[in-house]
Amino acid sequence: MFAKTPEPPYYAVIFTSHKHAHEGYDETSDRMLALAQTQDGFLGIESVRGEDGVGITVSYWRDLESIARWKAHGEHRVAQQRGRSDWYSAYVTRVCKVERTYDFQA
Amino acid sequence: MFAKTPEPPYYAVIFTSHKHAHEGYDETSDRMLALAQTQDGFLGIESVRGEDGVGITVSYWRDLESIARWKAHGEHRVAQQRGRSDWYSAYVTRVCKVERTYDFQA
Repeated sequence: MFAKTPEPPYYAVIFTSHKHAHEGYDETSDRMLALAQTQDGFLGIESVRGEDGVGITVSYWRDLESIARWKAHGEHRVAQQRGRSDWYSAYVTRVCKVERTYDFQA
Repeated sequence: MFAKTPEPPYYAVIFTSHKHAHEGYDETSDRMLALAQTQDGFLGIESVRGEDGVGITVSYWRDLESIARWKAHGEHRVAQQRGRSDWYSAYVTRVCKVERTYDFQA
């Protein structure tokens, strides 16, 4: 549920989206999650989607190079294209450097 | 639904949480959202919570100073304390510098 990330600095990719169609989405999403986890530099992922179709997925990466490689990965590029043609009405991707963290456990 | 943020650089605070109790939460959450929007340096917010209680809220800020001021705001500090005592079983807060963005609109 919470990504087990190292001490900063590392990078986060915040992907905020609105999904308006579902056909084939879950299979591709599951496959991309499994594939991301095998990529060099992948640190973890957190993802939530509400009933209104709005979702926030944050993936964590060691450096900008690993983010660029994942963005350019062939199978991921096909999935991104399907995202634009089939599933998402809109999205914003923000690439960020994580500088500080605080956590709490009851 | 999507925060209308300026060109980078700016800052993001990624707040990932698990909420296990609800009493009084919505009123405080609504009040904190309204109050945050009046703070100098506030740029926008995106928030999703799933049925399993896991939520991701990302707030966007002009600079680290505005994030520090909001963290230290008296009414917000009371709400943070209630979050720890009453609502959240765990959370992680990550303070990040947004370096690049990409967006898509169908």
